[in-house]
Amino acid sequence: MAQQMTKSDDANQIITALVANARAAQSVLGTSRYQQRCAALTAGAAAIRDATDDILATNEKDLAAAQQAGLTAAFIDRLTLTPDRIDAMAEGLQAMAKLGDPLGQELARWQRPNGLDIARISTPLGVIGIIYESRPNVTVDAAGLCIISGNAAILRGGSDSQHTASILGKIMADSLASVGLPQAAIQMVPTTDRMAVGAMLAAVGGIDVIIPRGGRSLVERVQREARVPVFAHLEGICHIYIAPDADLEKARQIVLNAKMRRTGICGAAETLLVDKMIAEACLADIAADLNAAGCLLRGDDAAKALVPSIEPANESDWHTEYLDAILSVRIVDDIDMAIAHIGTYGSSHTECIITESDEVAAKFFLEVDSAIVMQNASTQFADGGEFGMGAEIGIATGRLHARGPVGAAQLTSFKYVVRGNGQTRP
Amino acid sequence: MAQQMTKSDDANQIITALVANARAAQSVLGTSRYQQRCAALTAGAAAIRDATDDILATNEKDLAAAQQAGLTAAFIDRLTLTPDRIDAMAEGLQAMAKLGDPLGQELARWQRPNGLDIARISTPLGVIGIIYESRPNVTVDAAGLCIISGNAAILRGGSDSQHTASILGKIMADSLASVGLPQAAIQMVPTTDRMAVGAMLAAVGGIDVIIPRGGRSLVERVQREARVPVFAHLEGICHIYIAPDADLEKARQIVLNAKMRRTGICGAAETLLVDKMIAEACLADIAADLNAAGCLLRGDDAAKALVPSIEPANESDWHTEYLDAILSVRIVDDIDMAIAHIGTYGSSHTECIITESDEVAAKFFLEVDSAIVMQNASTQFADGGEFGMGAEIGIATGRLHARGPVGAAQLTSFKYVVRGNGQTRP
Repeated sequence: MAQQMTKSDDANQIITALVANARAAQSVLGTSRYQQRCAALTAGAAAIRDATDDILATNEKDLAAAQQAGLTAAFIDRLTLTPDRIDAMAEGLQAMAKLGDPLGQELARWQRPNGLDIARISTPLGVIGIIYESRPNVTVDAAGLCIISGNAAILRGGSDSQHTASILGKIMADSLASVGLPQAAIQMVPTTDRMAVGAMLAAVGGIDVIIPRGGRSLVERVQREARVPVFAHLEGICHIYIAPDADLEKARQIVLNAKMRRTGICGAAETLLVDKMIAEACLADIAADLNAAGCLLRGDDAAKALVPSIEPANESDWHTEYLDAILSVRIVDDIDMAIAHIGTYGSSHTECIITESDEVAAKFFLEVDSAIVMQNASTQFADGGEFGMGAEIGIATGRLHARGPVGAAQLTSFKYVVRGNGQTRP
Repeated sequence: MAQQMTKSDDANQIITALVANARAAQSVLGTSRYQQRCAALTAGAAAIRDATDDILATNEKDLAAAQQAGLTAAFIDRLTLTPDRIDAMAEGLQAMAKLGDPLGQELARWQRPNGLDIARISTPLGVIGIIYESRPNVTVDAAGLCIISGNAAILRGGSDSQHTASILGKIMADSLASVGLPQAAIQMVPTTDRMAVGAMLAAVGGIDVIIPRGGRSLVERVQREARVPVFAHLEGICHIYIAPDADLEKARQIVLNAKMRRTGICGAAETLLVDKMIAEACLADIAADLNAAGCLLRGDDAAKALVPSIEPANESDWHTEYLDAILSVRIVDDIDMAIAHIGTYGSSHTECIITESDEVAAKFFLEVDSAIVMQNASTQFADGGEFGMGAEIGIATGRLHARGPVGAAQLTSFKYVVRGNGQTRP
C-alpha cells in the first residue's frame, strides 16, 4: 500500500512537471508563425529519414522483447518498422505542412448596427494528451498534427513500443528546437507505469483534452476514468441499410468493400440491414460475393430463409463489432425499422443507406444520430485522409467539439475578436 | 448515514427517470421541423402573457418565503416578477423564433476527387442540464433556447424560486405539447434536494452538457464535481490595457462605461492596465471620472504617485472580481507586461486594448488567450445579445466546443453527410 501510494505520487509528479513544461511551450508554439510550424514538420521529416538506421535498430529492441513475450503476429506486424514505413511517416509530415494554417482562420465575421466588427478566429486547443497502443506511426502523426495546430502534446505510447516511440518522440521534439520553437511542445511520458495514465486522465486544467488511440479496453478505461474531456470512439458498429429503391449493383459492390476491404478498421461494416421489399432480389448475390471473399454471414430467420448458407445470429451479434470477416444480416420491414435498429445497436460512428432516392436518404440523414451518415458509398471512407483533411488522429463519436475524423482543424478552438471605435454600451 | 444514502438513491432515481424521458423526447424534438419549434416558442410567449396573474400570485409565495428568510434586497429584487418582466420573457421567446433555424445548417461542404460530396450539418447537442440560481427568467430563456435548438432540457432552479420556476417550466412544457411536440423535452427537477444536483453532474451518457448559471460558489461546485462536460465561466476578471497610442477621449469613455455601466455583470472591467508612456497624460482624468461616478480606485505605487486619491492595491486585488464600484489600476512598462499580467491574473473572459494602431491590436489579439478580445470598445459588450446572437444562456471560458456567449447556435453539434454514387475505397 505504501509502495502503491509512492508510485502514484511519482506518477503525479511526473505528469505535473510535463504539464508545466507543455503549457509554457504551448504559449510560444500557439502564437508562432505558420511558416515556422511548417519548418518544424519539414525538419522532422528530414530527421526521420536521416535516422532510418537508428530507428530500425531501436525498433529491433522492441521487436525482440515482443517476440520473447510471445505477442501475436498481428501485434508484432503493427509494431514493426521498415524503411518504407519510416519513409511513409516522413511523407505524412510533409503532407501536413501543405494543408494550410489551421490557426488564425476567420471562421465567421459580422458587423453590428453600432459599428462593432466581430470575428471568430481559430486558436489552438492547448495541451493535448495522447494515449495510444504500440503503433510507432502514432507518435509521429500525433506530434505533427499537434505542432501544425499550435498545441503541445504529451504522448504516452504503449509499453511494448517504448524504445521506438522514444526515439521518434525525441526526433520530433528536436525538430522543434532546430527551427527555434520550444522543444517541450512535444514530450513523451518517460515511464511505462500505468499510474501515469491515471495522472493524465485527472489533469484537469493542465491537459485540455485526451485522445485515446487503441482498442476497446484502452478507450473504455479512458472514458471511465477521465476527468479531462476525451475525443474518442469506443467502437465502430457500422451499418448498411439497403432500401427498396437501391441500385443493386451499387449495393453489391459497396457491401463487399465496406465489409472486406479491411476488416480490422473502425469504418468496416458490421451489420447489413436489408429491406424486405428487396431482400429476395439482392441478398443471395451479396452473400455469394461475401462468401467467396471468405466472409461468414450470421442472420435472422428471414435472412436464413432466403440464403441457406447464412448461420443463425443471436441478440449479441447485433451488438458486436467483429473487426473480422463476419457480417450480421437482418431483414427489416422498412426504413423506420432500420433507423430504430441503428439507434438501439449502433455506436454513432458511420452508417450508410443504399438508395437512389434523395428523399429517402434525407430521412436517413436526419434521423440517424451518427457522426457520419452516407448514401451509396462504402463505410470504409470514414477516415480523415479520405475526407480530405490530411492526417487524422482518430475518429470521435461524442457530440461535443470534435465529431467524425479528428484532423488539425478539429484540434483548434476559437476566440472572438471585437473591433470598435470607441463604442460604449448604453 | 442510512438516511443520507436513501436521499442520494432517491435523487439518482429522480434524475434517471428525467433523463430517460428527456432522451426519448429529444429524439423527436431534434428531428422536428423549424416551424414547429417556432410555434412552440410563440405558444409559450402567449401562454406566459395569458398566465400573468397566476405567475405573479405564484411568485408572491417565493417572495414571502424569501422575506421571511431575511434574504438581501438585491436577491429579492432578482426574484421579483412584475407584469413588465413577465412581458419581457414572452418578448424574448418571440425574438428567439426569428433568428433562423440553428439546425440543419450546412456548416461546410466540399467534393472529393472521387466524386464523394461531404457536408457538415448542424445537429442538436442532445440533453442539456441547466443549474441556476433564483432568477425566474432563466427558466424561460433556457427552455426557449433548448427548444429552438432541438435539445431537451432538465432545469434545476434555485430553491428560493421553486414555485415561480415550476409554473414557468410547466407553461413551457405545455407549450410544446400544444403544438404536438413532446412535453418532456422541458422538465423541471421536482425536488430542491441538493443531491439532485450531484446526480445531474454525474449523469454521463444521460446528460450531454451541464450549464451552471449563477455565482462563483455554484460554478465552482459544478466544475469540481461534474463528470459531464460543462459550459461555464468561473469569473470575469476583465482587463483594459491603455496603449501608448490610445485615443485618450475613447479611453476615458470606455473605461468609465466598462466599469460603471453595471458593476455586477461578468463583462464589467475589474483591472485597468495603463502603459507608463501615457499614464501621466490620462490617468488623472480617468480617475476623476470614476470617482465622480462613485468608483473607488486601488493601484500600485506608480499609479498612486500620479493620482493621490488612489488607494493602495495588494496582490489579492489583481485576482479579484469585485462585481462592485472598485477598480484596480496598474502601470505597466509595455504591452508585453500587460499581456503577461492578463495571463497571470485573468480569467480568460474578456479583455480590451485601447489603441489607434491595428498592428498593436493584432499582437494583443494573438497573445491574449481569452474568449473575447476587444479593441476600443467597452468590455460590457461581452454578451450574446450585443453580439447579435439573440438570447444567450451564459458565457463560456473553456476552450472546448463553446466559447464566449452561448446562444442557440452554440447548443448544436454536427454530423457529416456523405453523398456518393457507388464509390468503394481502393
